[in-house]
Amino acid sequence: MIKVTIWNEYRQDRDIDFIRAVYPEGIHAALKQGLSAPDLEIRTAVLDDPCQGLSDEILDSTDVLVWWAHAAHQEVTDENVKRVLAKVNSGMGLIVLHSGHYSKIFQAVCGTSCSLKWRESGEKERLWCIQPFHPIARDVPETFVVPQTEMYGERFDIPDDARTIFMSWYEGGEVFRSGVTLERGYGKIFYFSPGHESFPIYYQPEILKVIGNAIRWAAPLCRGIISAPCVKNQEPLYSLEKNKE
Amino acid sequence: MIKVTIWNEYRQDRDIDFIRAVYPEGIHAALKQGLSAPDLEIRTAVLDDPCQGLSDEILDSTDVLVWWAHAAHQEVTDENVKRVLAKVNSGMGLIVLHSGHYSKIFQAVCGTSCSLKWRESGEKERLWCIQPFHPIARDVPETFVVPQTEMYGERFDIPDDARTIFMSWYEGGEVFRSGVTLERGYGKIFYFSPGHESFPIYYQPEILKVIGNAIRWAAPLCRGIISAPCVKNQEPLYSLEKNKE
Amino acid sequence: MIKVTIWNEYRQDRDIDFIRAVYPEGIHAALKQGLSAPDLEIRTAVLDDPCQGLSDEILDSTDVLVWWAHAAHQEVTDENVKRVLAKVNSGMGLIVLHSGHYSKIFQAVCGTSCSLKWRESGEKERLWCIQPFHPIARDVPETFVVPQTEMYGERFDIPDDARTIFMSWYEGGEVFRSGVTLERGYGKIFYFSPGHESFPIYYQPEILKVIGNAIRWAAPLCRGIISAPCVKNQEPLYSLEKNKE
Amino acid sequence: MIKVTIWNEYRQDRDIDFIRAVYPEGIHAALKQGLSAPDLEIRTAVLDDPCQGLSDEILDSTDVLVWWAHAAHQEVTDENVKRVLAKVNSGMGLIVLHSGHYSKIFQAVCGTSCSLKWRESGEKERLWCIQPFHPIARDVPETFVVPQTEMYGERFDIPDDARTIFMSWYEGGEVFRSGVTLERGYGKIFYFSPGHESFPIYYQPEILKVIGNAIRWAAPLCRGIISAPCVKNQEPLYSLEKNKE
Repeated sequence: MIKVTIWNEYRQDRDIDFIRAVYPEGIHAALKQGLSAPDLEIRTAVLDDPCQGLSDEILDSTDVLVWWAHAAHQEVTDENVKRVLAKVNSGMGLIVLHSGHYSKIFQAVCGTSCSLKWRESGEKERLWCIQPFHPIARDVPETFVVPQTEMYGERFDIPDDARTIFMSWYEGGEVFRSGVTLERGYGKIFYFSPGHESFPIYYQPEILKVIGNAIRWAAPLCRGIISAPCVKNQEPLYSLEKNKE
Repeated sequence: MIKVTIWNEYRQDRDIDFIRAVYPEGIHAALKQGLSAPDLEIRTAVLDDPCQGLSDEILDSTDVLVWWAHAAHQEVTDENVKRVLAKVNSGMGLIVLHSGHYSKIFQAVCGTSCSLKWRESGEKERLWCIQPFHPIARDVPETFVVPQTEMYGERFDIPDDARTIFMSWYEGGEVFRSGVTLERGYGKIFYFSPGHESFPIYYQPEILKVIGNAIRWAAPLCRGIISAPCVKNQEPLYSLEKNKE
Repeated sequence: MIKVTIWNEYRQDRDIDFIRAVYPEGIHAALKQGLSAPDLEIRTAVLDDPCQGLSDEILDSTDVLVWWAHAAHQEVTDENVKRVLAKVNSGMGLIVLHSGHYSKIFQAVCGTSCSLKWRESGEKERLWCIQPFHPIARDVPETFVVPQTEMYGERFDIPDDARTIFMSWYEGGEVFRSGVTLERGYGKIFYFSPGHESFPIYYQPEILKVIGNAIRWAAPLCRGIISAPCVKNQEPLYSLEKNKE
Repeated sequence: MIKVTIWNEYRQDRDIDFIRAVYPEGIHAALKQGLSAPDLEIRTAVLDDPCQGLSDEILDSTDVLVWWAHAAHQEVTDENVKRVLAKVNSGMGLIVLHSGHYSKIFQAVCGTSCSLKWRESGEKERLWCIQPFHPIARDVPETFVVPQTEMYGERFDIPDDARTIFMSWYEGGEVFRSGVTLERGYGKIFYFSPGHESFPIYYQPEILKVIGNAIRWAAPLCRGIISAPCVKNQEPLYSLEKNKE
């Protein structure tokens, strides 16, 4: 049983009518329902929860954290970002969705600006799976369309060890590395760009399939892993010359 | 002419007698002298300088920043770390030395804890160059010895895109990825582990050769590069279907 | 159930007395016994078998191929190397052991010479696991010793996407990337250097644990995967401008 | 002065009227003229030359080999492929163009099938530079169009260490990693997909700029580099325990 926490900023989908019309209970609720499966124990948390929804109690019992955010990245405290990053380094999986590319936690994972080009156009996006053998691609069609999307275009300022699993084609002429994996410490990270708040993208079966696969891929092999500590005064394994003198 | 700023924490080498005995003017001064060359315009800065030695004026006129620090990592402000990282993302080279593995700036570049094992033993370290064709290895022997060193051992918690140029063997039985490159945004980073403050390692010709090569490798191709901005409302290159309706 | 074929050159361990004394039934037989487990269906094949032990019948029913060879690399036909590589590209796992670094199949996977330094010395080798969270490292100690080994030293001429899982330290002063993973097409490859024929290394529990883990890691997610074919005259997904004219 | 050999299969552009109409002297001649520069010493060679244009004399005096081929990949002898690969491993740069993706030499470099999707459609291709700071991207626009092209689409079966510099968008809905770098041994390789023989793509300034940059990037740092040999009976650097007994 994989313990999943879907964390949502929950501002636009709570406060703006035409977005709430798409996600009446919030994006986190739609994702929770869409990802429901016997091997996943899913709960949700939002920015306006106590401790910003990122208490030790929550993080300590999370195998994979799913992150959706857009307008309030700067409200997430640096302290919380450090705690989430430490958890990722210790083995917690992290799935960053859509506008989460500009979240502090994804920037901290990447060490780069994570900037890109965008256009709110409602145009067609076609995804291509370029690593069809990857666990995240299991049972995902080689290519599929998101009928109406926000365009996210290159250059996407992420580090070179971001392994591209999906590439996107846009009607307006751009391309994008729309699904990439990273590893940091003991933790696995997946960024997936589809999911603009004003389109019903998180109801689309292929999108949910990718996110579900990514959760299972990012789950730690065993719980309770802690990151390599700095080992002080490590004993030598063999006698040192100076000691022989 | 490459503009180099050697930044030194300058605490232990200023305040502790047996370390000052090794580096009477500070590690930054020894490095400045040892790296002196017609194509390098070198200046130094230290933590206790105004603005922690990291003012916009300094960073804006720096092609490559060399970083030595040990005991006061936490004193460097988060604000300054963000500014240095932004400069790296915009193309400034960064050379991180020895105990700088645990600096905030190197952790920010890596997105990991950067932990390792260590032992202050004065034992022998043998470096092996495993990428002899890399610019950083130019005119560096395939293998050479640091006669007395602090042991730094694996696991070194750095990300997978750290490309190993040098590997170290220690008398006491450990191994270490002692010279690794990274890229973040437009900037190149090199971490090089030799350089404990109580041994005269920065006077050793092979060590200076490696650091000098790394500076030239990390220098930006052209100055004034700025990182890819987030481009808002990018115009479509082709007409969108919805517009045709 | 993972179908494993252990392929052994089987010349030195058949013909040379002091080596046969170590592996009376051949290295393949010792490995088969040592790796025996309920989830592995293991058979063996040797160079002097019909079809060099690499018939379509064998390859088509192999999930993971383990390869040990030393003196007769050149006898394996180019045709067979191409067939094995095609199978790897189609998803078959490949575990290359010790002197197999210089086999045609490993060179074909790498695209490099795979050269290294060596010394038949019977000296001590200490392995360090530098990716302790990797499936190949599961239940493997962070460090362990092979009491008597052939030294394999850097520079090991393999490509940069070889991900280092184990690094070795040698008594005589060398270091080596002794356990590395690669991926080619749909197939996963692991190279593991311990295993000189004149020492009883394949009876050592840590070594068998690593090889067993690697087999399970390299097994294809699903059988019958075929590599991406060249798709001729792919139909356009959207009408082309020229067609509109 | 960089010594460049442009190798061309020279069959279709010699024998087929409508292709010869585009490249009257052959693709190699057009490239030679288009790439002409004071720092490049360019000659050409073709498949029907003695020794298939790949004699030791030619290879030994080549810093960077440019490779165009399409219909006669199988005619290049395995022996010549091995010799070219050995030269690449020893430091010779290799620029593989367009249908060269299916050449034996590129497959040997990659260790994969190098398969892809294609369509001879004359449709529009838009390239995006996703690593604008890379030497190959110098003075190349962030995005530009090849007005009429053959579509090459994903999945492109190349190894994961292929670093993507350019990505392409096609009118018909596909995407492609159209410019990728690789390293093998001491040699640098660049694959660049634009260049179908029936369109005048090698007269386009942006395309020539990319190829010219790639030649300069792939040139070895120093001539006469030879690949790491297998070093037999390496002397131990420190005395071995067994010798003490």
